[in-house]
Amino acid sequence: MADDLFADGCAFIDEESFPIAEARIPIIDTGFVRSDVTYDVVAVWDGKFFRLKDHLDRFEKGWNRLRMKPNLSKDEMREILFECVRRSGIRNAYVEMIMSRGIDEHGSRDPRRFRNKFYAYAIPYVWIVKPEIQKLGIDLVIAENVIRIPTNAVDPTIKNFHWGDLTRGIFEAYDRGGYTAVLLDSDGHITEGPGFNVFAYYKGRLFTPNIGVLEGITRRTVLELAEKLGIPTKLTEFGANVLKEAKEVFITSTAGGVMPVGKINGNPIGTGKPGEITLLIREHYWEAHNEDQWTTTIDYIKRL
Amino acid sequence: MADDLFADGCAFIDEESFPIAEARIPIIDTGFVRSDVTYDVVAVWDGKFFRLKDHLDRFEKGWNRLRMKPNLSKDEMREILFECVRRSGIRNAYVEMIMSRGIDEHGSRDPRRFRNKFYAYAIPYVWIVKPEIQKLGIDLVIAENVIRIPTNAVDPTIKNFHWGDLTRGIFEAYDRGGYTAVLLDSDGHITEGPGFNVFAYYKGRLFTPNIGVLEGITRRTVLELAEKLGIPTKLTEFGANVLKEAKEVFITSTAGGVMPVGKINGNPIGTGKPGEITLLIREHYWEAHNEDQWTTTIDYIKRL
Repeated sequence: MADDLFADGCAFIDEESFPIAEARIPIIDTGFVRSDVTYDVVAVWDGKFFRLKDHLDRFEKGWNRLRMKPNLSKDEMREILFECVRRSGIRNAYVEMIMSRGIDEHGSRDPRRFRNKFYAYAIPYVWIVKPEIQKLGIDLVIAENVIRIPTNAVDPTIKNFHWGDLTRGIFEAYDRGGYTAVLLDSDGHITEGPGFNVFAYYKGRLFTPNIGVLEGITRRTVLELAEKLGIPTKLTEFGANVLKEAKEVFITSTAGGVMPVGKINGNPIGTGKPGEITLLIREHYWEAHNEDQWTTTIDYIKRL
Repeated sequence: MADDLFADGCAFIDEESFPIAEARIPIIDTGFVRSDVTYDVVAVWDGKFFRLKDHLDRFEKGWNRLRMKPNLSKDEMREILFECVRRSGIRNAYVEMIMSRGIDEHGSRDPRRFRNKFYAYAIPYVWIVKPEIQKLGIDLVIAENVIRIPTNAVDPTIKNFHWGDLTRGIFEAYDRGGYTAVLLDSDGHITEGPGFNVFAYYKGRLFTPNIGVLEGITRRTVLELAEKLGIPTKLTEFGANVLKEAKEVFITSTAGGVMPVGKINGNPIGTGKPGEITLLIREHYWEAHNEDQWTTTIDYIKRL
């Protein structure tokens, strides 16, 4: 049953639940002071998790690859996510799970010996681009003053908080009159932006980068929907020109779904309005949030 | 006057002091969930800050370049650092100051609108290499499986928590039987390691990288001491060979000072023991902690 104290969000930290505004982590947690952490975000839409298993599986891969050893099972973490949402009562939620290297209890500075920590919280659904801006299409800037952190420094397929480059991109976008930015790698290939993957409908095919990016679950959903809809896709490296010359461009994120791009570097894409392919995929994306194969219903009454 | 509750350390968060074990920051702080943050660490040795002004100046440069606008003056922050140390009573302390982008209070996702937050804490002095290991010299590994995040992605001169690459380096060092690692850039130039700069005494000169690294205050102190001692220095790009063929190698950090390297990739450097130049500089480094020009005495009795 929902609890009014938790109406703005509920977090799980050190075996306790907290209203989101009071939810705090240790200042000396290496998830903070070393950004030694992986995370995932799953959406709850109309009281149902969307692709929860896929998010949990990716999350598990991440912490394993960082050689973390949580003291909770994946099933226990899953139950905590449910409990965060239940307690908040939120029907459209943004649910974040975090695995941190945690605390250096022995002053050893040896990350193999730290006590890893699982945190989670549910808050109202986040739109990285609000629906009213999506109607116009996003002004997307291709960053010129910053490149994406390369994969041989920090692996973007392990979802992480290393956003320094992406935040520089956001500021550059603002400086150039844009809304947000997509970053290139050092070879000039399109990668991703702050919290999103990017797609271009170009010469009859839907392009998206195959490397140097998070393998987003929304990205995967779009690729699966495109196949179902008979839209050819191409996972490949490509440069800025593909975005500039595309008929349609959109970005994808758990926090907002499929979001149309209206301009690249200030120049209209196609008609300058959300394109047909984009809108078709977006429609199917949201419909999928009602399909049993991809959703898990939350029983808001049950309590641990 | 020191307070026993704070004997293990004292933190300042949101206008309050906390014993370090209870010091917590909001889980939704973008300093954590976006690693949108800069920090600095200054040492207190025998009751005196070492080069406090230099650390504060670098810290200020960092937050300005990240376009943050703290609601405290630099003098107020300085006073908070003193108060953290005083309250803890610690005479040899590791004092960290943190400026975070903070909280997205309006759900705007626009970092220009966040309320930036200043945090600080003092804990007992940290040795990234304990004195007993320094006697033998560190087993330093030149990482092969990871490169340093490039400066055009995240600027290392703005001290930051983007340590994913450095942590990978630590794990690689362990896997190869080493103690810690130094990372190369994508062109094969030596950069820095987790929390330290690196120096090589090579062909009669003291080499240290000129770009792609934090401009460490300990690094600067070593360069100034070398000048005083008549040891020629060279700030330049150089490859792994310079470390491998050096007569002496050492690393520098506020957390440990000047620390001798005994082996590179398992092979002894010079005699395999801490070298003469290294020991000379280390001696002068610690002596400097008593010199008025570089230190600021803490009045442990005074309380705010």
